[in-house]
Amino acid sequence: MSKSNIRPLGYNAYMKNKPIGIFDSGVGGLTVAAQIMEKLPNENIIYFGDTARFPYGTKSATELIEYTFQIVKFLREQDVKLAVIACNSASSAALEKAQEHFEIPILGVVEPGARAAVLASINRHIGAIGTETTIKSDAYKKAIHMFDAGAQVFSATCPSFASFVENGHIEGDYIYEMAEKYLTPLKKQEVDSLILGCTHYPLLSDIIQKVMGTEVKLINSAEETALEVREVLERKDQLRKDGKSSYRFISTGDSSKFHKLGTRFLGREIKQVETVKLDVEH
Amino acid sequence: MSKSNIRPLGYNAYMKNKPIGIFDSGVGGLTVAAQIMEKLPNENIIYFGDTARFPYGTKSATELIEYTFQIVKFLREQDVKLAVIACNSASSAALEKAQEHFEIPILGVVEPGARAAVLASINRHIGAIGTETTIKSDAYKKAIHMFDAGAQVFSATCPSFASFVENGHIEGDYIYEMAEKYLTPLKKQEVDSLILGCTHYPLLSDIIQKVMGTEVKLINSAEETALEVREVLERKDQLRKDGKSSYRFISTGDSSKFHKLGTRFLGREIKQVETVKLDVEH
Repeated sequence: MSKSNIRPLGYNAYMKNKPIGIFDSGVGGLTVAAQIMEKLPNENIIYFGDTARFPYGTKSATELIEYTFQIVKFLREQDVKLAVIACNSASSAALEKAQEHFEIPILGVVEPGARAAVLASINRHIGAIGTETTIKSDAYKKAIHMFDAGAQVFSATCPSFASFVENGHIEGDYIYEMAEKYLTPLKKQEVDSLILGCTHYPLLSDIIQKVMGTEVKLINSAEETALEVREVLERKDQLRKDGKSSYRFISTGDSSKFHKLGTRFLGREIKQVETVKLDVEH
Repeated sequence: MSKSNIRPLGYNAYMKNKPIGIFDSGVGGLTVAAQIMEKLPNENIIYFGDTARFPYGTKSATELIEYTFQIVKFLREQDVKLAVIACNSASSAALEKAQEHFEIPILGVVEPGARAAVLASINRHIGAIGTETTIKSDAYKKAIHMFDAGAQVFSATCPSFASFVENGHIEGDYIYEMAEKYLTPLKKQEVDSLILGCTHYPLLSDIIQKVMGTEVKLINSAEETALEVREVLERKDQLRKDGKSSYRFISTGDSSKFHKLGTRFLGREIKQVETVKLDVEH
């Protein structure tokens, strides 16, 4: 679009029908897609899982910026009205650079979760859990302090959570004991709100809630990001309020594995998975 | 309150009835108070106007931090559940330090306005107008880039706006011409959303809208701050949802002048104005 505020008549109606682009290193971001589908039921969605290069958690910031640029470029070619980086590692590493580079609005998952935690906390002891890459980047800490410079942030990595979820293990004594080990330090700090800073963690909500205690508010970054996407589209008058939605699922790797795993993360059936190879420019 | 998440039964019900504290250098912050009264009709409110030291726009950051600390301390003694710095200059200079120092949640007016502008903008050309102190501090620019690193920010000072509003001049050819002079540079940059970054400016909305054109969204920081206060209290389950509200108005200077001017800014009658002298510790 032109960088002008003089938009042709019918511009917003035209924008409304464009899809939302969502991407992640794999199927984890489908928890974000699921929340967007639930909270914005008329939106068309293109979900892009970069499964060929999964996981992002072990990649460098430079690599994540490169991957993000490739994927946002691809999503722009599909004419999305908005892109969501539904991956904590890529959000932490590449969001700002992508916002500076591309013309379309780009949202990450870190800021919405951090804001929700600050707003919900009463004792201002906020917990954040995520992969090593995400926690090491201090992205949640910075985002929390953006909203409340005086909040105390306690974070922890939960190295095995994601792979357990990926393999379908989301309950049982072993997972409970692991959760206790990871979360006890945060419990000792009396955090009263805890950010689930990895797309896989909402599938472990029950166990995490049990370990932390019922009085601790779990902040689901996926849900908060969906709420933010809705507010963004409402404020821009680009929310699609009626009409049947259509969904496309794209994977860079094994489409049958994406299909099988993805159904569990999305919580609804995935009809078809397209395979795409990204042009790597070097 | 204790920094514990184990709160006694009935804690939130007890918190709900506590007042919200709002302060400003004078009567300007009453535009924020008016929005809070409208959007949170059951809340008890204490408004503090530091008229004896008005205006804040010419004070140093060190002074504004000192004043803010004195006033938040006073409001805490009145047992407020939340404090709002309803002044752009004091928010820019003192919000972070106050959040670090005090236990109660403290909100400013800059972040809510910046967030709303980013969410509303389509061409990502965002305008911000304010007093010289506010614009020079780059607080809006920083806050906008927090939400969208790629947004282009264009700002302008409107030196005479506040004193005209203060003296009751909010319409007429002269004001229109002045507005044209201040706003034309922003219009040339094709900003599609414009933050009214001073508590006095909402009273000039009609003229500003006329000069900018109907397609430009005016972001009223006072309204956005009220929405944020509501979300904060909802998320903390501390919103007072029923019961008659009570309002106190406190001024450090001439209470009859506060009364006369304040009624216009608040848009409703002020019954009584208390006078308070702050202890200056040096």
